[in-house]
Amino acid sequence: MRAALQRFRTLGYANTSLDELAAATGVNRPSLYATFGDKKALYLAGLARTHAIIDSTFAALHDVHYPPEKMLKALFLGAIEGFLTGEYGPSGCIAVNTAAAEAVADADIRAALADFMQLQDGWIEKLMEQAGTADPRGDAQIASSVIHSLSTRARAGTPRAELIAIAKKATALLLA
Amino acid sequence: MRAALQRFRTLGYANTSLDELAAATGVNRPSLYATFGDKKALYLAGLARTHAIIDSTFAALHDVHYPPEKMLKALFLGAIEGFLTGEYGPSGCIAVNTAAAEAVADADIRAALADFMQLQDGWIEKLMEQAGTADPRGDAQIASSVIHSLSTRARAGTPRAELIAIAKKATALLLA
Repeated sequence: MRAALQRFRTLGYANTSLDELAAATGVNRPSLYATFGDKKALYLAGLARTHAIIDSTFAALHDVHYPPEKMLKALFLGAIEGFLTGEYGPSGCIAVNTAAAEAVADADIRAALADFMQLQDGWIEKLMEQAGTADPRGDAQIASSVIHSLSTRARAGTPRAELIAIAKKATALLLA
Repeated sequence: MRAALQRFRTLGYANTSLDELAAATGVNRPSLYATFGDKKALYLAGLARTHAIIDSTFAALHDVHYPPEKMLKALFLGAIEGFLTGEYGPSGCIAVNTAAAEAVADADIRAALADFMQLQDGWIEKLMEQAGTADPRGDAQIASSVIHSLSTRARAGTPRAELIAIAKKATALLLA
């Protein structure tokens, strides 16, 4: 599943064939079909796995009770470092950058993307609330928006230093 | 070209075949090939056209010399209303939401996406400078980031009222 996720994340959903998934995972096509049904089911299972990983990452960040500035630093820098990984180079977030391309034409992928964003907004709201900011929901939506952009910018080739500068600016605005 | 752009914007690059482009534009495949070369050339021409439209839209906004709050309102609400249009429903920005899916595997599309972001960041920096904000470049990168997210959220089905609330919150942070 991890190898399949990397393929989807690198190439996007539409560019990833079952042959490529078979090659990447070392599992033949009939077995992939037998286990997951079809390419879309495998992609949605990959998004669900990413969803679960993000959920536990946010839960861990919530557990440590960081003060506001340290929390935002962990949030943004953690996101940036993740977005800069990938098979061939910086690949951002699979949900934001591959599901969005399918979201208009495919209602299931659109729903999965919306769930993903709701999970992210919701957790960041909890973190903002814990940090005692005045408008946790609004602050969370902006922090989450900046993360969406950092992901897209990473995929566009923006260097780490510029991504970090954007994260620092967002932190300054949110803590002002 | 407008019809081809709509197809690419709705379905994404990989899902749009030359047959679909021929059907959408009413131009047959051989003529499309003769005029543009191939699907990628047509897509890049579409991005360049979008680039030119965005450029003149920003130039017009710069010409009117709005005070800061009015400028940000025009910027964000104009973006949101554009993102909510589409063939079948809210389709966001073609560059942010379809080029990003191709950007890791295709260097030309990655470069076009990076140019698009630079254009947007650069114009918003000029608008911030004109509005007299203390950190035009940093403020512009945050405003531009919020626009990337509004586009992605529109594609995920986020309702207008929530997009507008995010824009208002971003405006409040930037003007604080």
